[in-house]
Amino acid sequence: MTSQTILARLVFLSSAAAPFIHAQPPARPATPNDTLVSPEVLAGNRVAFRIYAPKAAAVTLRGDFMEGPGAMNLEKDANGVWSVTTGPLVPDFYSYSLNVDGVRTIDPKNALIKQGITSLDNVFFVPGAEAAFEDAKPVPHGEVRMVWYKSSTLDAIRRMHVYTPPGYDGGSARYPVFYLLHGGGDEDSGWSSIGRAGFIIDNLLAANKAKPMIVVMPNGSMPRPPNAPAGPGPGAALAQERFAGELMKDVIPYVESHYRVVADAANRALAGLSMGGGQTLRVGLTNPDMFAYLGVWSAGVNPQTSPDFEKRSAAFLEYPEKTNKAVKLFWIGVGAKDPLAYAGSKNLIELLKRHGIAHEYHESPGGHTWINWRHYLNEFAPLLFR
Amino acid sequence: MTSQTILARLVFLSSAAAPFIHAQPPARPATPNDTLVSPEVLAGNRVAFRIYAPKAAAVTLRGDFMEGPGAMNLEKDANGVWSVTTGPLVPDFYSYSLNVDGVRTIDPKNALIKQGITSLDNVFFVPGAEAAFEDAKPVPHGEVRMVWYKSSTLDAIRRMHVYTPPGYDGGSARYPVFYLLHGGGDEDSGWSSIGRAGFIIDNLLAANKAKPMIVVMPNGSMPRPPNAPAGPGPGAALAQERFAGELMKDVIPYVESHYRVVADAANRALAGLSMGGGQTLRVGLTNPDMFAYLGVWSAGVNPQTSPDFEKRSAAFLEYPEKTNKAVKLFWIGVGAKDPLAYAGSKNLIELLKRHGIAHEYHESPGGHTWINWRHYLNEFAPLLFR
Repeated sequence: MTSQTILARLVFLSSAAAPFIHAQPPARPATPNDTLVSPEVLAGNRVAFRIYAPKAAAVTLRGDFMEGPGAMNLEKDANGVWSVTTGPLVPDFYSYSLNVDGVRTIDPKNALIKQGITSLDNVFFVPGAEAAFEDAKPVPHGEVRMVWYKSSTLDAIRRMHVYTPPGYDGGSARYPVFYLLHGGGDEDSGWSSIGRAGFIIDNLLAANKAKPMIVVMPNGSMPRPPNAPAGPGPGAALAQERFAGELMKDVIPYVESHYRVVADAANRALAGLSMGGGQTLRVGLTNPDMFAYLGVWSAGVNPQTSPDFEKRSAAFLEYPEKTNKAVKLFWIGVGAKDPLAYAGSKNLIELLKRHGIAHEYHESPGGHTWINWRHYLNEFAPLLFR
Repeated sequence: MTSQTILARLVFLSSAAAPFIHAQPPARPATPNDTLVSPEVLAGNRVAFRIYAPKAAAVTLRGDFMEGPGAMNLEKDANGVWSVTTGPLVPDFYSYSLNVDGVRTIDPKNALIKQGITSLDNVFFVPGAEAAFEDAKPVPHGEVRMVWYKSSTLDAIRRMHVYTPPGYDGGSARYPVFYLLHGGGDEDSGWSSIGRAGFIIDNLLAANKAKPMIVVMPNGSMPRPPNAPAGPGPGAALAQERFAGELMKDVIPYVESHYRVVADAANRALAGLSMGGGQTLRVGLTNPDMFAYLGVWSAGVNPQTSPDFEKRSAAFLEYPEKTNKAVKLFWIGVGAKDPLAYAGSKNLIELLKRHGIAHEYHESPGGHTWINWRHYLNEFAPLLFR
């Protein structure tokens, strides 16, 4: 870089912008914000949230530990600090966001976040025995790799996250591959941040409860094709169809040519949550010879939005004897209080029964949250590649 | 997980908390926030920032594209939307944060962030020719790995980021290693997010301007030892000394036993910015046989806070003939308007001259920003391992 370009970078301020610049930051008295802590795990695993917002008229909080819709109201004290304290929480990772006078925002005092494609959520951890399965423990750890590959579907460089188990590097063994998909609004980092996938697999391996495997976590959020209709329905389905192509033509071939894998159906698993569960159905049921293990979590079939589902999946659904031999495990999970996926999961079960397709149905308490998805992963992964 | 534990997780709300819960989110009229875009790169590379905060009394913005201290004031329109537009910016990555009535916060409309240990900053990109060196281009890409290792220094699991060049996986070549350190407040992800290290090296390799190398980016933010004094001075130095031990006893041995590296001084480089520049001096000058390449960026020597610097570095400073043979490159860079490091860098130069230690001094325009550090990396990396 020349000095000129750096200089140009630094003297960018036009005369129009100049009046907005202070020569010095104004001297500022101390505020309660300076020493504020949020969130704070209190005795009995109650959690306090606090934000300094003296001029706000209303502050609410929405967390995935809350059942049902709605939000918690924070209350303001005389110093302008808004706060609320939960009841006892089961040890786990949780996410939340604040809303200050109608603006959704993160907690300014909490730098732990979950990255979404257009928004962030804060994350916090309540340590304890119930969270041991997902904690970073003193066991051998695999690596989580950020991998950039050429997407022929989008004609662009895209990123995926790839977990390689302890001992992969420097070894010569070949491994089975678990393709693990996130939900709508998230991206490829989700399963490695709030999803805790690497730590869950590390802990299962250390306890000899799962087979060593590679876990591939692609970015399932695809832009719609040019000129696709807006809104839900056909336009949304086109984006999902694009991801199906991306997974089959770009992601899997890249993984199978760049990692030491066993490239056959018995050594491939595919699972996903919510939108990723829909993608699992879209890819898995139209490619009946590709994956011996399928997991559909907090998703299902909606006849309104997927009117062609059975027709599209005919090669899978219409040959139950062949399918039941090829697919060793078809694991469907949903929370009993999941407003988005409970009915669709029941539809899926009904449809599979009608076609004589073997499956397992796991109904858990809870809703459409990462709380459930981490547990589903912890239950599903031990069953793979047996 | 049993049904009981999930149930307990979900019915956490004590009767005390119950009054805070709405049965339904209150119906809400549309607000300007719903369609707000921020930031937006306008014609001529001016950038507009916008936030909906109808009740706020003052909103300011601080960005690393601004020279000197101070902040930009946003102005409120009749709809409660605050905004400000910069003058033309040179294409680059930039970071900023907002301040709403005294509370530092991120831009609620921008999910691109730089992770710090206790805070977040937003990031945005102004594309263009000047930023090509750090852009994700259609060239072969290395991987950036999140690696968990046991720190004997802290008796804990810690994370580092490791860049492996294209072709590392599946190959048999051994590589030189560049240990690259971040600054105060950041952590091991910094060089891979706002630092763009992987993309910068990818682009240099594609242009045949650098030797293939592994880049190791540890977490340099260490807690002080128990009972260390608070505040700057001796307590802070103890944390830096702890990191020096961590790098020498934990990070380097882990890397040299887990990756295909050439484990000798001629194939080790060490560089860092700000706090990481101080760490580079602390480690590099007390271990004169370890690193053939040293980079000290936006750091230096402060006789007040490092009164024992020369004594501690005697093995390096007092034997210039030996040192000048062992150290092939000692590259010092600082911005002419860096209020934190300009004087210290001059002190360092003076001290090296006095001891007859060969070095290069690169004074750039600009201040204490990632704008400079990405460029320093782009200038330094091609000189390594020649």
